[in-house]
Amino acid sequence: MPVAPEEAASRVIEGDRRICARLMTLLEEGDGAAKEVMKLLYPHTGKAVTVGVTGGTGSGKSTLVDRLIQAFRERGLKVGAVVVDPSSPFSGGAFLGDRLRMQRHSRDQGVFIRSMASRGYLGGLARATSETIRVMEAMGMEVVLVETIGAGQDEVDVIQVAQTCLVVIAPGSGDEIQALKAGLMEIGHVFVINKSDLDGALQALRAVEAALSLKGMPEGLWRPVVVSTVATEGRGIDELVRAILAHREHLERGEGMERARSQRVEHELGLIFRDELERIVFRGLKGTGMKKRYIQDIMDGRTDPYSVIEEILGIFVKKRPSPWR
Amino acid sequence: MPVAPEEAASRVIEGDRRICARLMTLLEEGDGAAKEVMKLLYPHTGKAVTVGVTGGTGSGKSTLVDRLIQAFRERGLKVGAVVVDPSSPFSGGAFLGDRLRMQRHSRDQGVFIRSMASRGYLGGLARATSETIRVMEAMGMEVVLVETIGAGQDEVDVIQVAQTCLVVIAPGSGDEIQALKAGLMEIGHVFVINKSDLDGALQALRAVEAALSLKGMPEGLWRPVVVSTVATEGRGIDELVRAILAHREHLERGEGMERARSQRVEHELGLIFRDELERIVFRGLKGTGMKKRYIQDIMDGRTDPYSVIEEILGIFVKKRPSPWR
Repeated sequence: MPVAPEEAASRVIEGDRRICARLMTLLEEGDGAAKEVMKLLYPHTGKAVTVGVTGGTGSGKSTLVDRLIQAFRERGLKVGAVVVDPSSPFSGGAFLGDRLRMQRHSRDQGVFIRSMASRGYLGGLARATSETIRVMEAMGMEVVLVETIGAGQDEVDVIQVAQTCLVVIAPGSGDEIQALKAGLMEIGHVFVINKSDLDGALQALRAVEAALSLKGMPEGLWRPVVVSTVATEGRGIDELVRAILAHREHLERGEGMERARSQRVEHELGLIFRDELERIVFRGLKGTGMKKRYIQDIMDGRTDPYSVIEEILGIFVKKRPSPWR
Repeated sequence: MPVAPEEAASRVIEGDRRICARLMTLLEEGDGAAKEVMKLLYPHTGKAVTVGVTGGTGSGKSTLVDRLIQAFRERGLKVGAVVVDPSSPFSGGAFLGDRLRMQRHSRDQGVFIRSMASRGYLGGLARATSETIRVMEAMGMEVVLVETIGAGQDEVDVIQVAQTCLVVIAPGSGDEIQALKAGLMEIGHVFVINKSDLDGALQALRAVEAALSLKGMPEGLWRPVVVSTVATEGRGIDELVRAILAHREHLERGEGMERARSQRVEHELGLIFRDELERIVFRGLKGTGMKKRYIQDIMDGRTDPYSVIEEILGIFVKKRPSPWR
């Protein structure tokens, strides 16, 4: 950071947009001083309504996120959004039109949008996203929307950080079948049939409702909501906002909020841990020439990757760490 | 494993399909005995032509893989294929029709197909895929095709394990623009304009060729090839097979093959390392109640995830491992 951690943290909390963006970049790069800033910011986070928005290519996620930003702003709430970088391959990244639409928020001090690529982060997309959300909370965003492409472990990790999971489905895309099969029905809190003016919208709605089998659900559990929208025209967005806020209220009424917070922290611990551990060991290996020698030995058939890793772990990891017994 | 590692390894090398499938499942589950089998198999691997096939939803990857299996079989080569499980959400997993088509290979002893989901593997998709390819090589497959969805870090990891990378593009899908933007142009060795009977095929071809800017390329480097196909009708498949084999020959002529093998081993080391390390530490944490206490402390604001991880790493990781100095 260009300034001391304490100074940087204060500026983030005051909402200094330039320093927030800079901090996000440094976190993505695994900067050590940025972590010190995060330690200071951490107690100032954790209060926002966090919403994961997942769905296939062409489901209209980006437009939906844009409309949600607008709708939450109209309710007077500050909104942060983590969106998929359009430069990602096959990611369902928004096309130029969507981006231009979203830029209309760029002069609104109550909105902070951050684009993320689907790969290329030193500590992984999930860690980078998770930390970006924390920074947005520290700078005062009351709602944070996180768009994900819904494929791969990274995406599951991202969804697990958010309190409320929106699954966006376009009629006739086959997505409803995929969603049913893939266990997304279990993680979704709100299902959005977007582009509901298209043929097959009613069938998609029925298919999702049938799969949710809401009948006979025990009292006290959240009953997933299905909302029909036409994001391009803003139709159904108010209902969607109400569904999101209803889920938040549901969490706050019972122990759900405590559980969601705990789950988020546990998840963050895992992400940070994996990343930091790797860095320590790779730093230890660097410049020793041992990695190269190992690779050559494997290629020459003198050993294999499994035996090599056993050896390396023996060197780096304490066998029976006493504090844990 | 139901049998001793030596016995299991012999049976894999003899091509016992049941034991190969069982081994793959055990590897996905992180079974310890399965790793012992892999140590024995490792020297019997590394010789196949390995081909990564990446592309967006609807590009026709699955059909193309099916046609490639057929074409390599007609050349008398044994073919293994790792394909995307259709149950994955938004993964571009093949629909029922594609799967049925592929099943026609199921009685052919010279073909071995393994479906993989895009998530849910203990050690990650990339490790599971990488090990599946090794098993296929050990059982005598001479060509191994690996279908990936081309999004997220997992997929990049998968591609890096293969020698030859095919980027599949459908005309008018916008994929060509995404590919250009996203650096896929640099990792692709063969570009496939599939569904080349559709409108816009010529434009897609031109766009890709222009982006590759083949003019003025130095001698000795591989010049990426662009092939037009209509996989559903089998058109262009022979040319595609020739392009794949030409790339293999190119690698073997120079030092490319040595480099590709070394890169693959290095990559495997990273994947296995990350996975094993995590297991050791999580095993150490299990049942101690410390994780829960840490989470509570963080939630109560007494500490933060960064400080906790620093503490845990101090317990598990040796500070200055002497053998490395």
